[in-house]
Amino acid sequence: MDQIPALDAADVRFDLTTDVVALGLGVAGASSVISASQSGAEVLAVERSVGPGGTSAQSGGLIYLGGGTDLQRACGFEDSPENMVAFLRAALGPDVDDDRIDAYCEGSTDHFDWLVSIGVPFRASFCDEPNRESADDAGLLFSGGEDTYPFDEIAVPVPRGHKPQCIDSAGGFLMERLGAGVSASGARVMADAAADALIMDSGEVVGVLVRTDEGPRAIRARGGVVLAAGGFINNESMVAEHCPLAHVPNPAWRIGTPHDDGRGIRLGAGAGAATTRLGSFECALPLGPPHAMARGILVNRHGQRFINEDTYTGRIGLHALRDQDGAVFMITDDVIHQRNPIGLRIGFAAATPEELATDLGIPPEALGRTVREYNEAAAVGEDPTFHKRAPFLQPIGVPPASGIGAIDLRVDRDAIYATFTLGGLVTDPDGAALDEHGQRIPGLYAAGRTAASLAAHHYASGISLGDGSFFGRRAGRHAATRARGNHS
Amino acid sequence: MDQIPALDAADVRFDLTTDVVALGLGVAGASSVISASQSGAEVLAVERSVGPGGTSAQSGGLIYLGGGTDLQRACGFEDSPENMVAFLRAALGPDVDDDRIDAYCEGSTDHFDWLVSIGVPFRASFCDEPNRESADDAGLLFSGGEDTYPFDEIAVPVPRGHKPQCIDSAGGFLMERLGAGVSASGARVMADAAADALIMDSGEVVGVLVRTDEGPRAIRARGGVVLAAGGFINNESMVAEHCPLAHVPNPAWRIGTPHDDGRGIRLGAGAGAATTRLGSFECALPLGPPHAMARGILVNRHGQRFINEDTYTGRIGLHALRDQDGAVFMITDDVIHQRNPIGLRIGFAAATPEELATDLGIPPEALGRTVREYNEAAAVGEDPTFHKRAPFLQPIGVPPASGIGAIDLRVDRDAIYATFTLGGLVTDPDGAALDEHGQRIPGLYAAGRTAASLAAHHYASGISLGDGSFFGRRAGRHAATRARGNHS
Repeated sequence: MDQIPALDAADVRFDLTTDVVALGLGVAGASSVISASQSGAEVLAVERSVGPGGTSAQSGGLIYLGGGTDLQRACGFEDSPENMVAFLRAALGPDVDDDRIDAYCEGSTDHFDWLVSIGVPFRASFCDEPNRESADDAGLLFSGGEDTYPFDEIAVPVPRGHKPQCIDSAGGFLMERLGAGVSASGARVMADAAADALIMDSGEVVGVLVRTDEGPRAIRARGGVVLAAGGFINNESMVAEHCPLAHVPNPAWRIGTPHDDGRGIRLGAGAGAATTRLGSFECALPLGPPHAMARGILVNRHGQRFINEDTYTGRIGLHALRDQDGAVFMITDDVIHQRNPIGLRIGFAAATPEELATDLGIPPEALGRTVREYNEAAAVGEDPTFHKRAPFLQPIGVPPASGIGAIDLRVDRDAIYATFTLGGLVTDPDGAALDEHGQRIPGLYAAGRTAASLAAHHYASGISLGDGSFFGRRAGRHAATRARGNHS
Repeated sequence: MDQIPALDAADVRFDLTTDVVALGLGVAGASSVISASQSGAEVLAVERSVGPGGTSAQSGGLIYLGGGTDLQRACGFEDSPENMVAFLRAALGPDVDDDRIDAYCEGSTDHFDWLVSIGVPFRASFCDEPNRESADDAGLLFSGGEDTYPFDEIAVPVPRGHKPQCIDSAGGFLMERLGAGVSASGARVMADAAADALIMDSGEVVGVLVRTDEGPRAIRARGGVVLAAGGFINNESMVAEHCPLAHVPNPAWRIGTPHDDGRGIRLGAGAGAATTRLGSFECALPLGPPHAMARGILVNRHGQRFINEDTYTGRIGLHALRDQDGAVFMITDDVIHQRNPIGLRIGFAAATPEELATDLGIPPEALGRTVREYNEAAAVGEDPTFHKRAPFLQPIGVPPASGIGAIDLRVDRDAIYATFTLGGLVTDPDGAALDEHGQRIPGLYAAGRTAASLAAHHYASGISLGDGSFFGRRAGRHAATRARGNHS
């Protein structure tokens, strides 16, 4: 990775001084700005685009929160921080940051209240189709497979996808609200400006050099700099080096703005921050409505099932792309499939599984055996191999179905695998960036996809807006506190 | 309406001079900025929020275009400007602006190419569920009921909803692209700033007074001012006075940002511009997937049908709210309805239509007669009263259904009716604002929801991003041309 070396403060003449500088105005940066301002700091936000939003504004708007938020309770669900921790450790791992997960779950109800207090509304209504934003403005849904195997045996299944009150995708709405919060905070926004380098003094980050239309500006930050500049899905060489599987063929399915080019991570690394899990990524395979689709079975190129089809679709996508090389079919029939509103069509049809397998180019005996075994399991109402739940077990390719068919989910045949990176700078529960030895780099903070995600190897929808806003808010507060100590 | 009076230039000392000023950076303002810059003008954009986006960024991202765009042709559809005009006159009327519709349809293929040229991609894939953005990144869909009665008899039905290549809602993505275009254009952006008044000199708009954090700034605009500051759904007194039906009980369903408060319209009126159709509004009633829902029947409080249920859902919503007082039920049964992914549930169930009617509080004989007549029509495969198409005609409440049921779509019982205003300033095909006599006010332009929409009394999804970008672009170009004439 090409680090961006920090400048030595001795070589810099500062143009202006403030308390806290945030680089980036997606959900993490905006949260850090609002929070630092609430803590009494003078804040400058630097955004490469013409305004706030970033990739957050293009998202569905789900925020992963729990532990017993007001919204969960109003919808009739009981949750606790311990229950949330148990689920997240299992679902996001292995190798999660236990201390950050603990802090996140412990502080989650308070964080929900904070979001409401700064103007993000939620409607107390539960949407029982999981994994993606509700089509109406219902505020709560399952977004990580909590009610599917094995997680339903590890923790009490409760929904934690919190969607701001907005019909359909709520990311734009959320960022409009946070943008208004930034505006009301009194923070200064420098838009259309990029950070060229961090500025250090004796191992401490003391400012940043920013390129603006009016020329370079060296900014001193008494409290610190919050790196909240997104991930690196749109940096081809970084992706090729660290996360090649996330480089799906169609660039439109790599989720990010052009500014998700790893600049924040490279700036942090240049100041001595450690990075971790740069190979981790999320991969959404839109299968919807998920409950309807769950009645089919997913097979790999060997004609074998590889996952419970009723689980979180992001989990399915990751396993399909990473472990099955994106060479996957959904086997279904006309009775199960009926019409699929998101446009997935049965592209192959045959009389028997063996004939279908021949058309698909996979071993006929294997697919025949897989379908036979699955149908026997479905008839009994139990799936001993992958533990798909009973409501989604339905024999495939038998009357009244007119035959058997397959939906082509191969990544090289135009199926959608939507990816973004999860690795980044190592941070602690305050959002402070850490070096290789686990020591804080004074004055340096990171949040959002510039920091390594809570999602270490697997994902749940809402984690990025969740950990971005949560640790962004903490980073802003801590940088503000640090600034007070450095006022002369 | 409280006009905002213009200032007299004689009373103003200008702080700076530019060629074109755009107020607002939603789709209309951003398009005007890019276009004016492309025409060689020096441009200043003034945005009340911290950055571009506006209500456009919260939309599904559909842009209504046609006449034979590259995307339509790549998806196998033939269209012509004449065919598009025939549809839009019928679907958006009565009382449409013929000259603006003609210009829009004539220039639509060129406008599509322009959007592509400034960085908005589209994927050549047709999504056959109509009316709202595709759940994947398919680029083309029916969004105005073109293939339903009576429009299918008036024009050749072709899809014209163009969605930028983005999975799911594309409004945030579209505005990120346009924001990047604004950034690349070299225009200056003054964010977090509001226009206090237009400035006039002998009947001509020559500038605008802007309130910024650093105090008021009087800006002279050689070419003119483009008002692109949104509609007025969030101005309670304007809505109460002009468009009371759009004031649905739940504020979250009034579609707009807090800045859709009519300021652009009031500034324009204060400079002498005429307004029109302030009582027109769009009302989306999300019924999805629309094709599945179309198999039910909609009845009013008299137990009568009132529309073909397979038509554009925005048309259904408007008729339900405006003409049926939002007191509407969908009659269906368990066979037709099955599971509905957007969360509409059968809230009432009974053995017969008469029993159901009693539960709903509507006349039993009337509902019994409506269902009987409908079932007879469905059995024959023809709907002589409302002309719903044959695929969606299916008897209701007869075996194998276990009974008959109703979905509660009453506006006062939490059903979603999503509204925004369509009325505004009168403009000509160049985006120039007109006075009561149809004369241009020199130097004043309006686009987006600050101008009266192409949609006069009815709507089609994609019209607002469509007419906003189209006439915004034209306004920018014309203001730039005018600036060249005024350079001293």
